[in-house]
Amino acid sequence: MVKVAVDAMGGDLGPSAVVGGCAMALQANPALQVSIHGDQAILGPLLASHSVFSDRLTICHAPEAVSMEDKPSHVMRHGRETSMWSAIAAQKAGEAAASVSCGNTGALMAVSMLQLRRMEGVSRPAIACLWPSRGRHGFSTMLDVGADVKAEAPDLLAYAIMGATYFRNDFDEPRPRVGLLNVGTEEHKGRAEIKEAHDLIARHQENGRYDYIGFVEGSDLPSERVDVIVTDGFTGNVALKTGEGTARLIGGFLKETFRSGWISMLGGLLARRALKRLSLRIDPRRVNGGVFLGLNGTVVKSHGSADATGVAAAIGLAAKLAGSGYQGRMAERLVIAARAAQDAPEGDQA
Amino acid sequence: MVKVAVDAMGGDLGPSAVVGGCAMALQANPALQVSIHGDQAILGPLLASHSVFSDRLTICHAPEAVSMEDKPSHVMRHGRETSMWSAIAAQKAGEAAASVSCGNTGALMAVSMLQLRRMEGVSRPAIACLWPSRGRHGFSTMLDVGADVKAEAPDLLAYAIMGATYFRNDFDEPRPRVGLLNVGTEEHKGRAEIKEAHDLIARHQENGRYDYIGFVEGSDLPSERVDVIVTDGFTGNVALKTGEGTARLIGGFLKETFRSGWISMLGGLLARRALKRLSLRIDPRRVNGGVFLGLNGTVVKSHGSADATGVAAAIGLAAKLAGSGYQGRMAERLVIAARAAQDAPEGDQA
Repeated sequence: MVKVAVDAMGGDLGPSAVVGGCAMALQANPALQVSIHGDQAILGPLLASHSVFSDRLTICHAPEAVSMEDKPSHVMRHGRETSMWSAIAAQKAGEAAASVSCGNTGALMAVSMLQLRRMEGVSRPAIACLWPSRGRHGFSTMLDVGADVKAEAPDLLAYAIMGATYFRNDFDEPRPRVGLLNVGTEEHKGRAEIKEAHDLIARHQENGRYDYIGFVEGSDLPSERVDVIVTDGFTGNVALKTGEGTARLIGGFLKETFRSGWISMLGGLLARRALKRLSLRIDPRRVNGGVFLGLNGTVVKSHGSADATGVAAAIGLAAKLAGSGYQGRMAERLVIAARAAQDAPEGDQA
Repeated sequence: MVKVAVDAMGGDLGPSAVVGGCAMALQANPALQVSIHGDQAILGPLLASHSVFSDRLTICHAPEAVSMEDKPSHVMRHGRETSMWSAIAAQKAGEAAASVSCGNTGALMAVSMLQLRRMEGVSRPAIACLWPSRGRHGFSTMLDVGADVKAEAPDLLAYAIMGATYFRNDFDEPRPRVGLLNVGTEEHKGRAEIKEAHDLIARHQENGRYDYIGFVEGSDLPSERVDVIVTDGFTGNVALKTGEGTARLIGGFLKETFRSGWISMLGGLLARRALKRLSLRIDPRRVNGGVFLGLNGTVVKSHGSADATGVAAAIGLAAKLAGSGYQGRMAERLVIAARAAQDAPEGDQA
């Protein structure tokens, strides 16, 4: 059995979508238990229609909720009564192996850092996401996609190590290929901290058990060249949302295409099965969930706009990760790199 | 008649694609003249097959070429014999109204800044591109997409003013809506220089004749919310290339969809006209060309991988811009904003 703590509040579609997602996840995985955190008066009636799961789905009452407008610093000081805090606290107390929230990303990271603490060797935790790609496993991993708007060179090295461990765990890939996001692949281009990270990530290939392929560009994100894309949380967040927005735009254009006359409509009708497969292939709900890396515990941030299907995917991901033991392997790699840096001659800052 | 100077060297497909693009542009616009800059021994034979344009297409011999690996600083010191330098020099001498190159972006910006000089009030020129969108004109403009990896708040204000003038000129839109790219739309999020730019751009709405809509996210780039997206050249370049890469990935998936069985193939065959329109709608070649803004002269950077169609689009854009008078209007707006900032009380740094 694996138990996941779920924050019921803070998603755009409200607690009913979250409860629906819990039910879907419990249905899909008989070894799953869920504690759902939020206002008992709201959650009680919603859970009534899922009484079949009553032995595996329990409510933890928390009277308040974090809003999207709340500043992380405010939640850290005054958020002890919120459902978000309650979920992470349950994980800290060992009552859950992982947590999931659709709420305010900045607040979730702040509350998680405060309670679960950072791994040794990590000064900035990161959020990792999966990205549909032409790669050998159909996905690449990008991090950071929004935990922190800045990253120094040693942070980018930690992202490389954490991302490689995460990708290796998820896809059983012994040597993930790591690329550093830049505005060109030439060595003289880009910002100072990126040039420094370029050397650092190259030097730690054996400590992190990855192959460093050098700089990659935005166009490489969905390419077959790279498994793990390392970048700061500002750039990564813009790239992630730009990719999603572009996919949505083209998806909309495609729908219009098959409504632009009866012959096209007939064509779309004939190809509808294949088109359905295509839309599944580029559906962000399938891989819903940014994973917080670099904390002592697994926390999954679901899309704020996730529906029940999306929430269920995030809970499934959290349960899978909690059972995989990747946290221990990641901590080991980070410590090995930190010790190597200490033993190294001058010039290595990690 | 409008004359455009074209750098024949430096594109991925070589000078024959550029010569082909010149011929297409000349064919499309009888009022166009082109001076093509590069090695006479290579260009002579290529032009022989386009002798019908011999009175409007002339060769300017330049023995050397800038490579993609050349550092901008190297080209500035040692690049006087290159085709790129020759094209910009012709523009500086008044022999051409605009220039086009497929070559090294950093070198092109450096050579252009050195010879054409920056407009008053501009410390960092920018590259602007068009982005297919749901907006009222079918496109948005984003800048900077790669001139400089950094931008301070006053640079971002200049981008807002330049982008609004450019968009107004291109789409006859009296009050373009300007958005500042950030990781969230809440006021407390993002980097320090972006929060500062947020206030500055809001304050100069009347001087720049735009409506400031505040922060936008990556997902808003193709949305109907915004006309001009302002960001630094690192983030803008990553976003541009991520959008292009995503479009290419989905385009590839779509082709596979219509090869996945004979019923789907029949469907694709029936819908082929509508699908052709879709692929044109998302074809980057249609809007090929990043425009350098903030210089005393129009320079268009074509995609390095542009074929003849792409090169022709870039030349057509350069000719259109050169004849539109937008440069004078942009300079006027920048001067008005700079004077307003001087007259303003403390706290305004533009």
